[in-house]
Amino acid sequence: MGRVTERRRVIRIRDGVVSERPDTLVAEEPLEIRLNGKPLAITMRTPGDDFALAAGFLVSEGVLGAADELRSIVYCAGATADGVNTYNVVDVSTAPGVVIPDITLERNVYTTSSCGLCGKASLDAVRTTARWPIDDHADGAPPVRLTPELLARLPDRLRAAQRVFDRTGGLHAAALFTEDGDLIDVREDVGRHNAVDKLVGRALQDGGLPLARTVLMVSGRASFELAQKAVMAGVPVLAAVSAPSSLAVDLAAETGLTLIGFLRGSSMNVYAGEHRVALRTAAATG
Amino acid sequence: MGRVTERRRVIRIRDGVVSERPDTLVAEEPLEIRLNGKPLAITMRTPGDDFALAAGFLVSEGVLGAADELRSIVYCAGATADGVNTYNVVDVSTAPGVVIPDITLERNVYTTSSCGLCGKASLDAVRTTARWPIDDHADGAPPVRLTPELLARLPDRLRAAQRVFDRTGGLHAAALFTEDGDLIDVREDVGRHNAVDKLVGRALQDGGLPLARTVLMVSGRASFELAQKAVMAGVPVLAAVSAPSSLAVDLAAETGLTLIGFLRGSSMNVYAGEHRVALRTAAATG
Repeated sequence: MGRVTERRRVIRIRDGVVSERPDTLVAEEPLEIRLNGKPLAITMRTPGDDFALAAGFLVSEGVLGAADELRSIVYCAGATADGVNTYNVVDVSTAPGVVIPDITLERNVYTTSSCGLCGKASLDAVRTTARWPIDDHADGAPPVRLTPELLARLPDRLRAAQRVFDRTGGLHAAALFTEDGDLIDVREDVGRHNAVDKLVGRALQDGGLPLARTVLMVSGRASFELAQKAVMAGVPVLAAVSAPSSLAVDLAAETGLTLIGFLRGSSMNVYAGEHRVALRTAAATG
Repeated sequence: MGRVTERRRVIRIRDGVVSERPDTLVAEEPLEIRLNGKPLAITMRTPGDDFALAAGFLVSEGVLGAADELRSIVYCAGATADGVNTYNVVDVSTAPGVVIPDITLERNVYTTSSCGLCGKASLDAVRTTARWPIDDHADGAPPVRLTPELLARLPDRLRAAQRVFDRTGGLHAAALFTEDGDLIDVREDVGRHNAVDKLVGRALQDGGLPLARTVLMVSGRASFELAQKAVMAGVPVLAAVSAPSSLAVDLAAETGLTLIGFLRGSSMNVYAGEHRVALRTAAATG
């Protein structure tokens, strides 16, 4: 895991005082993801958890949904001039019988809808590709219902679980929590989509999909891409420290995802799926 | 410009008090960029300045370097079911004689180097594709040299120039400044790379490339991708509010780009190209 950070010389200026010292930076390297030997995508990522990243990416793209659909993930050749493997190319092999959907090389892009290229087409593509409805009622369990007080505790728990951020300040984080607010897993990456892919990929490898009755918390904004990844993994609640985009809110509303933004201190905005937030309790304590 | 933001209903929770009201969100929609009629890339962006975005993207990819290499940019068909143009597909036509380099569909990805897929290959690709050296000495002018005091004023000026952020909290911003700290242009977008592409594309359209003797300031982190865009546009100084990645620092060091991170108040870190920062002056005032 040494490659998660790298050391570089830096000149610090603090109130006019100049000093020179080594600094710890978040590592960024390209990763090529191949599917059954064919190049599919390249992402700039923080090295580490590469197999989980590749698996999670393929969950988001609708290729994988269960551990037994995965035959193997291996690093393949990608050697430097002096023959050292760069560990920047992974090949994911699917199990016999897995049907590969028609996915484009460009991530999160859907041009096949009847409406040309528009936000609606992007929403339709996620809805038709998703393997699981966001369904809290399986096995007769009561619906997920979170209090604002529980939600308000998640940002601090996410922050406390971030290990590399403290040293570099340069990482996005994503964490999975149970509906009781207990931390399941946290991942950091220079790209926020990669952090989520790493979480989802690990869940796939552990046989944990769909991620029913969980909360996905991200350190930054909630874009369409992150909402898509939550939906494709079956996560019922996506919470973000910062603002959502219009298309993220539209996707949440269409698929039944609960989308919470600006989750800071005891404040938050609920943009969709408010039936999973115990609003009456909140009002009573106000 | 009405599509830069969109209104959605939101449930606000503030210290347990629940209220419902309309909220302004940053708009996010896909944009397909075609080059001479062929689909090249799709990006999720905030609508507006789409022609500049497409032009700037093609500067970053090494396709365009001057306004006279551009024949036309038009919105093309991309109609919804009821025949309304989505304005989400633009076609860039190059002037006769412009040689199109071999660019991949995936952005910022270089797999042709001898060293397989690695950070070094990414650096080499930018260095060999760049049209201009980062050169302050053209026309016998003295080198760009910025005081820490001038740099320290830029974040507030960027923030003051952001118009949409105040309403949505959801936008990344990029601004160009002169070497005297005067604002040249500012762009906002849901994706930080798009904000930079919009700045660079506008400069191309105005005949302003290379962007010599300017400072590019970005609201977030400095990734490899942003450093690449600065280098491809001939910008000598890239300043970021947050952390750079290892590969961004490496690219800056290789190409002569001055890279400043954690620019906050009177503090900053200089990661590369410190000859453009007037350190002695700073030390004398410390």
